[in-house]
Amino acid sequence: MSTVITGIGELTTNDDELGRLHDAAVVFDEGRVVWVGAAVDAPDADERVDAAGRAVLPGWVDSHTHMVFAGDRTAEFEARMAGEAYAAGGINVTVEATRAASDEQLRANLDRLADEALRGGTTAFETKTGYGLTVDDEVRSARVARSRAESVTFLGAHLVPAGMDADEYLVLATGPMLDAVVPLVDAIDVFCERGAFDEEQSRQVLRAGQTKGLGLRVHGNQLGPGPGVRLAVEHGALSVDHVAFLETEEIGMLADSWSGGARGTVATVLPACDLSTRMPLAPARDLVDAGAVVAIASNANPGTSYTTSMAFCVATAVLQMRLTVEEAVRAATLGGAIALGRDDLGRISVGARADLQMLDAPSVTHLAYRPGVPLTAAVWRRGERVV
Amino acid sequence: MSTVITGIGELTTNDDELGRLHDAAVVFDEGRVVWVGAAVDAPDADERVDAAGRAVLPGWVDSHTHMVFAGDRTAEFEARMAGEAYAAGGINVTVEATRAASDEQLRANLDRLADEALRGGTTAFETKTGYGLTVDDEVRSARVARSRAESVTFLGAHLVPAGMDADEYLVLATGPMLDAVVPLVDAIDVFCERGAFDEEQSRQVLRAGQTKGLGLRVHGNQLGPGPGVRLAVEHGALSVDHVAFLETEEIGMLADSWSGGARGTVATVLPACDLSTRMPLAPARDLVDAGAVVAIASNANPGTSYTTSMAFCVATAVLQMRLTVEEAVRAATLGGAIALGRDDLGRISVGARADLQMLDAPSVTHLAYRPGVPLTAAVWRRGERVV
Repeated sequence: MSTVITGIGELTTNDDELGRLHDAAVVFDEGRVVWVGAAVDAPDADERVDAAGRAVLPGWVDSHTHMVFAGDRTAEFEARMAGEAYAAGGINVTVEATRAASDEQLRANLDRLADEALRGGTTAFETKTGYGLTVDDEVRSARVARSRAESVTFLGAHLVPAGMDADEYLVLATGPMLDAVVPLVDAIDVFCERGAFDEEQSRQVLRAGQTKGLGLRVHGNQLGPGPGVRLAVEHGALSVDHVAFLETEEIGMLADSWSGGARGTVATVLPACDLSTRMPLAPARDLVDAGAVVAIASNANPGTSYTTSMAFCVATAVLQMRLTVEEAVRAATLGGAIALGRDDLGRISVGARADLQMLDAPSVTHLAYRPGVPLTAAVWRRGERVV
Repeated sequence: MSTVITGIGELTTNDDELGRLHDAAVVFDEGRVVWVGAAVDAPDADERVDAAGRAVLPGWVDSHTHMVFAGDRTAEFEARMAGEAYAAGGINVTVEATRAASDEQLRANLDRLADEALRGGTTAFETKTGYGLTVDDEVRSARVARSRAESVTFLGAHLVPAGMDADEYLVLATGPMLDAVVPLVDAIDVFCERGAFDEEQSRQVLRAGQTKGLGLRVHGNQLGPGPGVRLAVEHGALSVDHVAFLETEEIGMLADSWSGGARGTVATVLPACDLSTRMPLAPARDLVDAGAVVAIASNANPGTSYTTSMAFCVATAVLQMRLTVEEAVRAATLGGAIALGRDDLGRISVGARADLQMLDAPSVTHLAYRPGVPLTAAVWRRGERVV
């Protein structure tokens, strides 16, 4: 069944030739966009939706989440708000609860969060393993993730689990554990940070992933300066995420990774995490100005960023990181798609997957102009109305 | 018909004797709370609601909004996000559109925003005139406001309207205009700021309001240091709002206004406005530490804070102004009620109006822990389920 959405007051296509259209229409059929243009020229379709002047944009592509978990870290959040600093060790609390949970419990929790995200306009998301940290628990985490996520990342190298030696654990994580999860995942990730894995250990993880043909990701430069960004660019990683502490040279490296038409490394900023850990906001303005490709993601996880709201992240990126609304929306849709290595997501042009959201507002500007107001009025995923 | 809500995982009462209860129940009848206590002890009622462990708290009391207006200021917001500083003159754009709008249009716009606020948990709000600035337009603004708001404030002294001299305008605003609106309003307000009204002019407005027996409010210390706080305290104002630029001495003045059991002046912080104008956040932490009574409000208006989301304001107050969740929730409920001079709102104890919200979360902590996620699951106003 084909659908035409007409009367679109403002259509964000993320397509450089189409640009931003007014009084526009979109037609999709069998889950793909088949026509985009002026409303007056729109062809007929089986179903007709009148946007009545409202804004339509691609669904959010949330390229960084940790939504396969069990347990609660409310007390840790409260302690942080009372002045305690964030320490990566809190991850162990979730590891313990995740190991103790059944597959059904993990799946139900993921579904709860994925449904919430969908109501907020997120039509595609990545999620990671990394709260299992045994072969069995990482495999079942990946399987649960696979059941719902667009893209799954193996994050065995999240933390050295309690009671293990780092070198001993890395032999496991880059050996039998990696072998066991490879059929279930798209990429490998490493938490390269003081208190987690150092430069040499991170290199070991990335190389092991490369050998298996996985995409690479790095959690880097979150809690202080570090080698994460450099490692990511050197290894041709799909993305380096957090990037709160960046030297000018590292910003240049990220921008240069795209020069000459090369596939570079996306800089993924996580505004809700920066706020929730009371750390400096990532320098998104400087990254965009330098010509880096930026993604905005939620980092939904129970420790440092327990939100699925991409609209909140976009509002924060505009109000506080000083992106324009257009830049922020692009980073939260097309930027995420590029971070996932996907060219069928994050845009509304012929051939793209029909993942769209309609706002209860005439312009995407309202996402920052009206922070906190739930503006998502309708969502289509693979051409099907889901909200 | 009486209702009992039982199985409340966490009940925020804002009553010093009751405190915060767990496994609690609330009973209300004919729009008033008639019983609060442990779930096991709860009396029967005509209707029974099971909160299933979720958190219940008073509905938000939004004590500072400007929701009677017409027109659009999206372009001004976009310009500000592109680096232009906020100037009070933007108010004139809304004045022109408001004068041109019919009463029905003003009422429809107010209803749209009030309904949105209610869905977000706001069960009582104040709103102001101030976009009319002629006798007729202020009177009809007050009448529209009265139709929906809990409390109405006359803000004839919002700005000197285009084409008028300040002294000439104040003769009107403190004379025939004030006389005409008095039967429709609860309080008078003045925008005491460079570019609006100076100390002497503000004093003139407050004295005129006092003569009529109105409650007093001041927009003060928003864009820079100024006499607003001092004037407000000297005149026994109900509240002074914005308070972004405060000297230690002024914080002390606000705290001292409550000493010896006196009715003092509430310091109302407007977190969404601070972010949306890219101004410094008001020093809410210092105010609470000094012993001042703080309210959090949305300042919903089309220029500087186009949001009705009290949850967004509470999250910002915790994450960025460093209030605890309990302090922020109290400021957004009981603090607002005190700013309105109302003792039947903002608390859940016997005799209070049955204005409650239930969150889709076990604790109010989730309001800051999960920013941007719409958590309001149910709302009762005067004992009636409205969401």
